[in-house]
Amino acid sequence: MFSALSHLECARCGQTYDAVTWQGLCPACRSPLLARYDLARVTLRPADLAGRPPTMWRYHELLPVTGPGQVVSLGEAMTPLLGVPRLAASLGLERLWIKDEGALPTGSFKARGAAVGVSRAAELGVGAMAMPTNGNAGAAWAAYAARAGLRMLVAMPLDAPTITRAEVIAAGGHLVLVDGLISDAGRLVGAAVAATEWYDVGTLKEPYRIEGKKTMGFELAEQLGWRMPDVVVYPTGGGVGLIGIVKALRELLELGWVDGPLPRMVAVQARGCAPVVRAFEAGAKSCEPWVDARTAAYGITVPAPLGDFLILDALYATGGTAVAVDDADLLADIPLVGRLEGLFVCPEGAACVSATRALLASGWLAPTDEVVLLNTGTGLIYPDAVPADVSTVAADGALTLPG
Amino acid sequence: MFSALSHLECARCGQTYDAVTWQGLCPACRSPLLARYDLARVTLRPADLAGRPPTMWRYHELLPVTGPGQVVSLGEAMTPLLGVPRLAASLGLERLWIKDEGALPTGSFKARGAAVGVSRAAELGVGAMAMPTNGNAGAAWAAYAARAGLRMLVAMPLDAPTITRAEVIAAGGHLVLVDGLISDAGRLVGAAVAATEWYDVGTLKEPYRIEGKKTMGFELAEQLGWRMPDVVVYPTGGGVGLIGIVKALRELLELGWVDGPLPRMVAVQARGCAPVVRAFEAGAKSCEPWVDARTAAYGITVPAPLGDFLILDALYATGGTAVAVDDADLLADIPLVGRLEGLFVCPEGAACVSATRALLASGWLAPTDEVVLLNTGTGLIYPDAVPADVSTVAADGALTLPG
Repeated sequence: MFSALSHLECARCGQTYDAVTWQGLCPACRSPLLARYDLARVTLRPADLAGRPPTMWRYHELLPVTGPGQVVSLGEAMTPLLGVPRLAASLGLERLWIKDEGALPTGSFKARGAAVGVSRAAELGVGAMAMPTNGNAGAAWAAYAARAGLRMLVAMPLDAPTITRAEVIAAGGHLVLVDGLISDAGRLVGAAVAATEWYDVGTLKEPYRIEGKKTMGFELAEQLGWRMPDVVVYPTGGGVGLIGIVKALRELLELGWVDGPLPRMVAVQARGCAPVVRAFEAGAKSCEPWVDARTAAYGITVPAPLGDFLILDALYATGGTAVAVDDADLLADIPLVGRLEGLFVCPEGAACVSATRALLASGWLAPTDEVVLLNTGTGLIYPDAVPADVSTVAADGALTLPG
Repeated sequence: MFSALSHLECARCGQTYDAVTWQGLCPACRSPLLARYDLARVTLRPADLAGRPPTMWRYHELLPVTGPGQVVSLGEAMTPLLGVPRLAASLGLERLWIKDEGALPTGSFKARGAAVGVSRAAELGVGAMAMPTNGNAGAAWAAYAARAGLRMLVAMPLDAPTITRAEVIAAGGHLVLVDGLISDAGRLVGAAVAATEWYDVGTLKEPYRIEGKKTMGFELAEQLGWRMPDVVVYPTGGGVGLIGIVKALRELLELGWVDGPLPRMVAVQARGCAPVVRAFEAGAKSCEPWVDARTAAYGITVPAPLGDFLILDALYATGGTAVAVDDADLLADIPLVGRLEGLFVCPEGAACVSATRALLASGWLAPTDEVVLLNTGTGLIYPDAVPADVSTVAADGALTLPG
């Protein structure tokens, strides 16, 4: 048995659907569908994983792709879980880890969702896909679509990182820039694909991207020796990764591979676009759209996440919280992490550092908590986040060593 | 025994030196020193590797770092060796692989050399290092130096990829731009560090960077099931990776882990900077400096490689060759690889595709040859290599699907 996939289930109304045809949103209530597995049939044990290749596909029983020949891969290796002792000391924590997703193909965690989403699209006969994106998801889906020989249309805000445009174009994707936000791009995509042979694969509009993202949770547990940390700090835009990590850990709990309480999940947003934080603070079950969304952490500029109720449920269920941070703080934390640990994190990853500092100051985090931060992409995609004001010397000049 | 390192040996005059103190060039003849191992003491067998973490450090017996506590790491996972069947078919090859080094920390193969070089520098008491770079090496060494808590000065030509400036600065490195070429930067660094406590860690100026680079050869052999391909195509600037791969495969031959002839090594250069190609075609043992060096494949703009004699020796000894390609061809091969396989390669990696096409046309390569191309970095570092001329639609506009 390569995959224990059994069916799809609506995350809101609970209606179930088959997983052998391509499905979008729940036909009954237009909410996201989630993949469900027959976990009782999974005889795999953690020790069996040791001999498998070190990629996210090592967990294939718990992924929806039905056979090894159906896997569309660009070599998405397990990402490192790095101890960061100097950063920990500077923040006042004893045990701090950064899971560095920048090592994935296309430079971000979006590769996980694209690898599984495109694999499923290809095996279920989808030929053409379209999506709105803040940059990284479009880059990843264009790359995996090319690898699978599928067509991909990407609608991206003008303000998204320009490097992700090059990624889409290099992969032969059809790129359209939108003078607006991801919510505008999503509306345009939805209108354009309606009643065509193109499929909308935007965030949570299909059930498989989240299955790729949940492998962050599997890897995290395996890398900690089948143990869960106390807290996971996650930069939250569409929130699929946060929902996915919790889904993964619940599956591992059900399998008996881990035990104890789920980690307290922290949704980090920027103060310029914080619909989840506002809803969490109000104790609400869903978000109101954020007006005039704007932040340097562009990947999390999502004014109205479709999975809002799932994000909030994950925060409430795990005893987690939601934190908004200032752009000035997260931008300052990029070179802080670099100087202390050598990691070039993305603005969204840096936001997790700022949030952790705030949660320690407020007492929500204790110095003894074991904390994992997700760095969702490489800093390479955001070079302008680092001021590069340097001196130039002539070829026949002289170079002065720093004092 | 963590490392079987035994001593250092001059690559030119053969003089030997201890490996327990920091060494630069051979004091006798100012040539590069190479690390030598007591391979007879290595009891490790290929099957023993299965249980080790999937990083370049799994080969630690054949690396110079003396203990696990001395390893400076940013999570440098084994890079994927990807079958690329559509690209193979378009070129007319039956078996083609790309080893994708873009997944390494800092986005290029330079992380391998930096990981080992910085680890050795730290364990041998070096506190401050300086180097000239075409961008990627400086970015990698700055990152690993930060991780180790060492000081790093990087001298980079103005024309080097601007993103690598951000990488150096984010890591707290001291960056100086040079209005010239890497050879000018090298001269400036050499003059500045003379008689100071700073060490020149430029290409082959110290013996450990190449030890990191050689892990490309170990991984390649392991990923092919302890087999060597017929041909390895390598973008050649300083040439450390090419020399390193041959060094690695010779060590594996001596250990009996592989057998058969070494792969024919192909040094790929750009027509605007091809000192190795010119020397190879003349049957020379060393290179003349290239005047007016200029190419879009900036990483291989090295007018006078210090290891020229080692590169040429590797080409002659393996029945290899050297090929110069046009910028227009390599730039066109970036989106070709992207469209066919979804990989966003760097210009230097794309140059290997152009060279392979030329070698098939000339008959030097046969369609039945098994060929491995090295993509030495992610295309993310060179976004301007992909023209991004796209249309923009208004937020309240309409999006047109491609026909």
